[in-house]
Amino acid sequence: MKLKIAVLPGDGIGPEISVQGVNVINAVCKKFGHEVSYEYALCGAAAIDEVGDPFPDETYNICKEADAVLFSAVGDPKFDNDPTATVRPEQGLLAMRKKLGLFANIRPVQTFKCMVHNSPLKAELVENADFICIRELTGGMYFGEKYQDDDKAYDTNMYTRTEIERILKVAFEYAMKRRKHLTVVDKANVLASSRLWRKIAQELAPLYPEVTTDYMYVDNAAMRMIQEPSFFDVMVTENTFGDILTDEGSVISGSMGLLPSASTGEGAPVFEPIHGSWPQAKGLNIANPVAQILSVAMLFEYFNLKEEGELIRRAVNVSLDKGVRTPDIQVKGGREYGTKEVGEWITDYIINA
Amino acid sequence: MKLKIAVLPGDGIGPEISVQGVNVINAVCKKFGHEVSYEYALCGAAAIDEVGDPFPDETYNICKEADAVLFSAVGDPKFDNDPTATVRPEQGLLAMRKKLGLFANIRPVQTFKCMVHNSPLKAELVENADFICIRELTGGMYFGEKYQDDDKAYDTNMYTRTEIERILKVAFEYAMKRRKHLTVVDKANVLASSRLWRKIAQELAPLYPEVTTDYMYVDNAAMRMIQEPSFFDVMVTENTFGDILTDEGSVISGSMGLLPSASTGEGAPVFEPIHGSWPQAKGLNIANPVAQILSVAMLFEYFNLKEEGELIRRAVNVSLDKGVRTPDIQVKGGREYGTKEVGEWITDYIINA
Ligand SMILES: CC(C)[C@H](C(=O)O)[C@@H](O)C(=O)O
Ligand SMILES: CC(C)[C@H](C(=O)O)[C@@H](O)C(=O)O
Repeated sequence: MKLKIAVLPGDGIGPEISVQGVNVINAVCKKFGHEVSYEYALCGAAAIDEVGDPFPDETYNICKEADAVLFSAVGDPKFDNDPTATVRPEQGLLAMRKKLGLFANIRPVQTFKCMVHNSPLKAELVENADFICIRELTGGMYFGEKYQDDDKAYDTNMYTRTEIERILKVAFEYAMKRRKHLTVVDKANVLASSRLWRKIAQELAPLYPEVTTDYMYVDNAAMRMIQEPSFFDVMVTENTFGDILTDEGSVISGSMGLLPSASTGEGAPVFEPIHGSWPQAKGLNIANPVAQILSVAMLFEYFNLKEEGELIRRAVNVSLDKGVRTPDIQVKGGREYGTKEVGEWITDYIINA
Repeated sequence: MKLKIAVLPGDGIGPEISVQGVNVINAVCKKFGHEVSYEYALCGAAAIDEVGDPFPDETYNICKEADAVLFSAVGDPKFDNDPTATVRPEQGLLAMRKKLGLFANIRPVQTFKCMVHNSPLKAELVENADFICIRELTGGMYFGEKYQDDDKAYDTNMYTRTEIERILKVAFEYAMKRRKHLTVVDKANVLASSRLWRKIAQELAPLYPEVTTDYMYVDNAAMRMIQEPSFFDVMVTENTFGDILTDEGSVISGSMGLLPSASTGEGAPVFEPIHGSWPQAKGLNIANPVAQILSVAMLFEYFNLKEEGELIRRAVNVSLDKGVRTPDIQVKGGREYGTKEVGEWITDYIINA
């Protein structure tokens, strides 16, 4: 296979983990005989500094032409503390999602054995947690009509049938590939938009007779996820609810620093860690590259290159088991490996596998 | 003091726990020399069955004339399973909130020692959790303009300055009475309505110089609440976010079945347990009356009758410590008390205190 990858390192620790992601791609491509080429592009604070736009047209064009995007992280505290800033790195994220039509955000909530102790939940509750949150990413209040003056403000939580159908189909397909259990999360007892979601889900469900589909109110889902995370297999919901629930899901796993995500849709799919840009750690060679590396596994799997993905996952698991870990996840007294060392260990494992 | 109380027993276990709430009010009034009178009114499924409306005008009038409302629970599965039902018990709740102008929902998230083991979180995380969620209850997407046809649907998340100011003031006042730490939860990096919330909060904060005010995005709050619940003292947020976060808060405490809430605003304040109508337990004398009884404590405290509230809380704590508990919270092998027996024990304690 021939892969053209857009690389968006972004801000903070982004560039460092990006390097490790690229190294892993190279190793896998070499091993399996794929051809790969890269185009680097600016985004986030780095792009604001250079060209005044967190998702410049040039970056957009590079992403559009690519088969996939390897994204790292954006965000810089200098913008948080500057109330006069009119452009912010996060806007780059939203622009990227919208312009590339990335309507499906896929977030596996997976628990790593060595990280279970790190969960705020009791170990027995998280040990078997293994589900996927699918969040609609280009609709709802994020992009609906907005208004604000000094006396009132509103956002519009708008969804069209097309938007709902396409994301639900993604969810049903994922459920088919997994334990065949889909939970549609909404607030249909209050919201009109949720009632349309539920109606369309009920229309689609008979097309996937093997999938057990259930419907859950968002307040309930927020509770259930903590009380019994193993209940879930695939969960799908709209943008704002998804923002809240995916974050909740990642912290209960105790593996937040290790989790990747994919955003897919019309244009080139984007693969990224769920963690942020951790500006304080920039350049210190202490950031954990595993989430970025697992996002590379998702990238290969997206193109149905399962063995490739499998090998990366195995490399990561072995590295964790052998204690090749960055400080954030190392046990007390264990040797602390740097970003580079962990990345190299995993790359070597792949090459020698 | 002279108190006129509207009693809305509602559905399921509602009537049984309502009786215990009323008994406690009587005991306290006798003890402290207050005069009290009651008016009973229909709501929920019970009201639909009798008059076709989950919050009939007559009930509204009774509530309007009262000093406070003692509410139990509404909801009946026969409506959940009937897609043709056009009136549902929950609509009574929403109508009650809107008509009585109950814009502030106050939910203490308190941990009872004997219930800590019941939390999905590790004990050390919840032991010291003690915060109050304040949820705006009559604005936002719950009541904004809605539209739905077969191809699109929307809800409007609309807030006016007046709506935001009054709920934030309630929150600042609560913070002043507690540990003086207020967390304003919003999504100001995405939503126009949130930006107005944050702006107004920043205007009000200088009027409460003793209060440490911080701002947190809702996705972050959903994580922080699990990672470090003791961080929070008073949290305030809009209706939809509040729906999700208050439920999340109640489950992490492990004391869900024991927690009361108050909804206050323009009209008579409403006091109720946060748990539902548990239809399966109806009439079995097994429902836990403690949340209802603690809602009575909130009722007295609302009228600044602190000693009265204190005595009820003490009675409840002693009953829990002495193992006078309904089956849902009794330890293995412990005698299981009925709804009535627990209520009577607490009432006796108050009378003999
Ligand atoms: C930064 C912010 C706009 C973004 C969102 O709310 O979508 C983030 O929280 C996320 O979940 O990717
Ligand atoms: C029943 C429902 C309409 C209600 C709400 O969403 O407000 C409930 O979840 C609550 O929190 O009181």
